Amino acid sequence: MTATPSLVDRILTRDPRAVARAISKIENDALDSNEILKSIYPHTGRGLAIGITGAPGAGKSSLVDKLALEYRRLGRSVGIIAVDPSSPFSGGAILGDRIRMQLLSSDPEVFIRSMATRGNLGGLARATVDAVAVLDAAGYDRILVETVGVGQDEVDIVKTADVSVVVLVPGMGDDIQAIKAGIMEIADIFLINKADREGVERTEREIIVLLEMSERSDGWRPPIVRTVATQNKGIPEFVEAIEQYDAFRRQQPSSSSRQTGVAEHRIIELLRDRVLKRLLREALPAGELRQLAEGVASRQRDPYSVADEIADRIQIKPGFHDKGSPNDVEP
Amino acid sequence: MTATPSLVDRILTRDPRAVARAISKIENDALDSNEILKSIYPHTGRGLAIGITGAPGAGKSSLVDKLALEYRRLGRSVGIIAVDPSSPFSGGAILGDRIRMQLLSSDPEVFIRSMATRGNLGGLARATVDAVAVLDAAGYDRILVETVGVGQDEVDIVKTADVSVVVLVPGMGDDIQAIKAGIMEIADIFLINKADREGVERTEREIIVLLEMSERSDGWRPPIVRTVATQNKGIPEFVEAIEQYDAFRRQQPSSSSRQTGVAEHRIIELLRDRVLKRLLREALPAGELRQLAEGVASRQRDPYSVADEIADRIQIKPGFHDKGSPNDVEP
Repeated sequence: MTATPSLVDRILTRDPRAVARAISKIENDALDSNEILKSIYPHTGRGLAIGITGAPGAGKSSLVDKLALEYRRLGRSVGIIAVDPSSPFSGGAILGDRIRMQLLSSDPEVFIRSMATRGNLGGLARATVDAVAVLDAAGYDRILVETVGVGQDEVDIVKTADVSVVVLVPGMGDDIQAIKAGIMEIADIFLINKADREGVERTEREIIVLLEMSERSDGWRPPIVRTVATQNKGIPEFVEAIEQYDAFRRQQPSSSSRQTGVAEHRIIELLRDRVLKRLLREALPAGELRQLAEGVASRQRDPYSVADEIADRIQIKPGFHDKGSPNDVEP
Repeated sequence: MTATPSLVDRILTRDPRAVARAISKIENDALDSNEILKSIYPHTGRGLAIGITGAPGAGKSSLVDKLALEYRRLGRSVGIIAVDPSSPFSGGAILGDRIRMQLLSSDPEVFIRSMATRGNLGGLARATVDAVAVLDAAGYDRILVETVGVGQDEVDIVKTADVSVVVLVPGMGDDIQAIKAGIMEIADIFLINKADREGVERTEREIIVLLEMSERSDGWRPPIVRTVATQNKGIPEFVEAIEQYDAFRRQQPSSSSRQTGVAEHRIIELLRDRVLKRLLREALPAGELRQLAEGVASRQRDPYSVADEIADRIQIKPGFHDKGSPNDVEP
């Protein structure tokens, strides 16, 4: 306590309280969270972020628990982020998860955190990606991102992980069960949990049919892993599949890598936040928004013209190219 | 076919093809959709938008069908928007719905449309609100917005309706079933569907307990309606509850009304879209985003600084107040 290392220093030495505090700052969109993220970013990219999504009742939480325990057995440190988009209909699952996770959380090499939606500005997807960056910079080897819900938000979150796992269970739906087109693109690994149930063969066949219909541009063929997480069955095979995909993706040329697409998406999401906040702060005097909204509510104005008018208060700076990418040699 | 009335004129005379075309333009973010929306906006506010959300399996689609039929019996025209956020796990419900809805769609006084998520720019919530505006301008008396999924997006959509209905079923969850804090604020009406099932008393008691814990600022006490939609039971009572709330909300002072809050939210969402699009179009030369993303992916740059740098290419115009609200008399 004599010297006071900065929050960033403490994150980099994996002080769990510093990690927790940084994530809280990110969730609350604290003023200094941007600077913290800038400072830690060069230290990221070492850990492997594993996104796990799937239908409700697929046993994702048990699976994450067992995966974390297996990684611990292999000597890896583990960060876990459970994403709860606060759906008013998701019920009490989270609390149960938290209690179960306490078994893991007595291990200092395991960090567990749940994240939920906050307000309108900000956004859960952004906060989750940033929290993964904090765990990564803190040196957690494997970062498991588990989504509780099943909406587009969760798919977006899982897409930004290094490895995306889609969890299914036998006999869930009627036909081709729950797999729509979008999910095929994001799954690096398919996992059939509760694989001791009837219908597992059929579920696997359905996945194979879907895989044959679509080919990935990188040539990766997603494996199908069977587990019974509650009985700890298939977990080493799950780890093996993850590590194999990790080895594969590291061989990909960076220009064509998913990383670049993820980075592009991320820059745009950050931009969206920044320009809106700036506009609200600098170009919309206090009270004016409410006044305009009253005009819209009473149909004296239309919201489209109002938004156009406010958006028109910004202009692009002349000569912005000077500050642009140094590789940009346009006049 | 001699004169060619504009799309807007045709919307205002409730030409279903014009209505459908305008909604497609909104979904696809067509160049002229903004102008169409501006033109029709003064003609909105006559119809009543009824948002219906609830847990999966609560029978929302049957309920919407029966509600539509009841409104038809009462001589009201009905627009229906089924919102499907394209969750990759939502299964095949939509198709079934569409088939069932064809029974209704032979009625020229009924317009049915489903809407799904598209890409990143745009946003389902915005498109849904705009589609409601089209149906409203077209003179549909009652506009039913049914959400298929259960995420935050859907809650956001239902919140912007004039009347929000939350659908529950008996015995769905363990304890206080599916009701979290957020949902209490958005429900103007609670509906227990499948009310012939065991546990209906308990579900109602739980809602009452929750209602007693929270008081609405407008003093409205949400009624609890019981229905068995498949047997057409309780539907007139449901209509009665909707109409009573509509009468109540029309008496509220406009300054404190939810309408103003909704309008505020809407202006901000439109702004978010506009400023980002403009920035991408005017301040980010082709290829530069990808180049920056590659730098971020390889950790040469961090995405936060990149976003700051791009955001810094805009500036607030001096003297924007001149173009501001005419009521704004600041120097």
